[in-house]
Amino acid sequence: MDRRTLLAAAPLAAAGLTTSALAQTAASPAPAAAQAPGFYRYKVGDIEVTAIHDGFAMRPLEGLVRNAELADVKKVVAESFLPDTALPITFTTLVVRTGGKTVLIDTGNGDSGAPTSGRWMANFKAAGFDPAAVDTVIISHFHGDHINGLRLKDGTAVFPKAEIMVPEAEWAYWMDDSKMSSAPDGMKPAFQGVRRVFGPVAKDVKRYEAGKELVPGVMSVAAPGHTPGHTAYTITSGSARFMAVSDITNHPALFVRRPEWAAVFDMDGEQARQTRVKILDMAVADRLQLAFYHAPFPATGHVLKDGSGYRFVPIQWTPAV
Amino acid sequence: MDRRTLLAAAPLAAAGLTTSALAQTAASPAPAAAQAPGFYRYKVGDIEVTAIHDGFAMRPLEGLVRNAELADVKKVVAESFLPDTALPITFTTLVVRTGGKTVLIDTGNGDSGAPTSGRWMANFKAAGFDPAAVDTVIISHFHGDHINGLRLKDGTAVFPKAEIMVPEAEWAYWMDDSKMSSAPDGMKPAFQGVRRVFGPVAKDVKRYEAGKELVPGVMSVAAPGHTPGHTAYTITSGSARFMAVSDITNHPALFVRRPEWAAVFDMDGEQARQTRVKILDMAVADRLQLAFYHAPFPATGHVLKDGSGYRFVPIQWTPAV
Repeated sequence: MDRRTLLAAAPLAAAGLTTSALAQTAASPAPAAAQAPGFYRYKVGDIEVTAIHDGFAMRPLEGLVRNAELADVKKVVAESFLPDTALPITFTTLVVRTGGKTVLIDTGNGDSGAPTSGRWMANFKAAGFDPAAVDTVIISHFHGDHINGLRLKDGTAVFPKAEIMVPEAEWAYWMDDSKMSSAPDGMKPAFQGVRRVFGPVAKDVKRYEAGKELVPGVMSVAAPGHTPGHTAYTITSGSARFMAVSDITNHPALFVRRPEWAAVFDMDGEQARQTRVKILDMAVADRLQLAFYHAPFPATGHVLKDGSGYRFVPIQWTPAV
Repeated sequence: MDRRTLLAAAPLAAAGLTTSALAQTAASPAPAAAQAPGFYRYKVGDIEVTAIHDGFAMRPLEGLVRNAELADVKKVVAESFLPDTALPITFTTLVVRTGGKTVLIDTGNGDSGAPTSGRWMANFKAAGFDPAAVDTVIISHFHGDHINGLRLKDGTAVFPKAEIMVPEAEWAYWMDDSKMSSAPDGMKPAFQGVRRVFGPVAKDVKRYEAGKELVPGVMSVAAPGHTPGHTAYTITSGSARFMAVSDITNHPALFVRRPEWAAVFDMDGEQARQTRVKILDMAVADRLQLAFYHAPFPATGHVLKDGSGYRFVPIQWTPAV
């Protein structure tokens, strides 16, 4: 032991720690127990996609599925070896580099989410991106975990130069004051949140229809049910085709496995089920790679038919982009 | 456009690039297309485990499985949406922080592997570790992708202070000159590689038996068949239990799914099959989390019984260590 270590040891020895334990600690200091940054890059033809993770929120299983017994929900969750009282629901947005532009699909929770979320900006920067250089933000629907990343609580616009593109049907629903006033009290904060985010830039927001090419290679696909204007996207480059399916399911361990189950977040459960089955059936038939907003990071993979439902098969992580 | 952009544009315009394409590029430069570093931290009770990725090697499907038709192998690979001509076989070692020590289980390919491997040291450092501070290296078996990280081609010992612990049965087999001279020519380089790595430190290498606690909480488990002394490990901390199963399977898409299939790398196919089934059955019964050296990164998850085989269920990635 050198002098410094000896000096450091004195109070520890007084506290009852052995010099052997100290020597061990001194021999190989533990690194800060940080996780690797939560971004993952992959290609769709020539288009580069980067998944950006925004952490998670714990959601009690009780009350999560409208039309299933809790015992059945727990049984399905157990097949994925996830906790059987509350599920970690994750948030993963996409950055799409296409036509020389940096395009976001959804923005995460910003500083308005659960304390276990809000990691988006650190991961976005770790991936080499700059919020001031974002050209376009495409929003899939108006739930807070998709839009709150656009504007901090203090009012700051996070992507000052970006054009913001939103589904026309989503705008029509959530910006309608009569819909807000007739909504149940529990839903009013969602309407107010939409106004908080979009109010200051309402005149500049570009509204899009389904079936349009929004930026080169990215086409909007109507996927209603989860919300009235909920939108999915195909991304196409040469012969490569990919689909970002937004919230056609919440956690795939539940709603890919049991597509007939309705998450409490789905505003029109039956319409959401039809959308889910239609898109998943197409993905099975075409062996299409999908990105799910609420799938475990990196939140992309394929689906197989499995019994009366489907099975999510995550992609194999690779360092080769 | 400002003056600098205009000046920069001149030679590009001469080269036939439009100013519109240039403006797009200037608006949002793409980040270097690097992947996030390949490490992943998780806890087994109080013990911190970090998976360190060493890249991959492409392995033609033809000839990979000794006792199956290529068409059947392709069918099973297709269920995992992996390439149907060659499989990316990945390498993921473990760092275990226990009793104040930094302990490695296996070391990756060092600078002796495929060009798509050799990423271990960069990932190890990105995780905050220092090779000079490694206290112990535990080796599961003597195949090059597990031991070559110990010593560079130029002879440098990569972990100069580390105690090296190897299975007694593995040492007895590979260091036996009569076994080397009677081996088929194709196997001789494996014997020579073992001598290259261990020769200079042979007198210091500590040999261990199965069923021993090697470092606090880490117990060796006999898992022969892949090689004569191939070893797995239980990691125990309080009520938490975990198993690092080394090469009881090669890629789980093949050998977890079809445990009766023998990889060309298994030296005793029937013994390897028995070991595989015994450990996987135990993991199913105990709902035990496993780490597989050749599973897709982060190479840890659980197994379910599925038909006549099993199914690998990767853990859900989380930023919360």
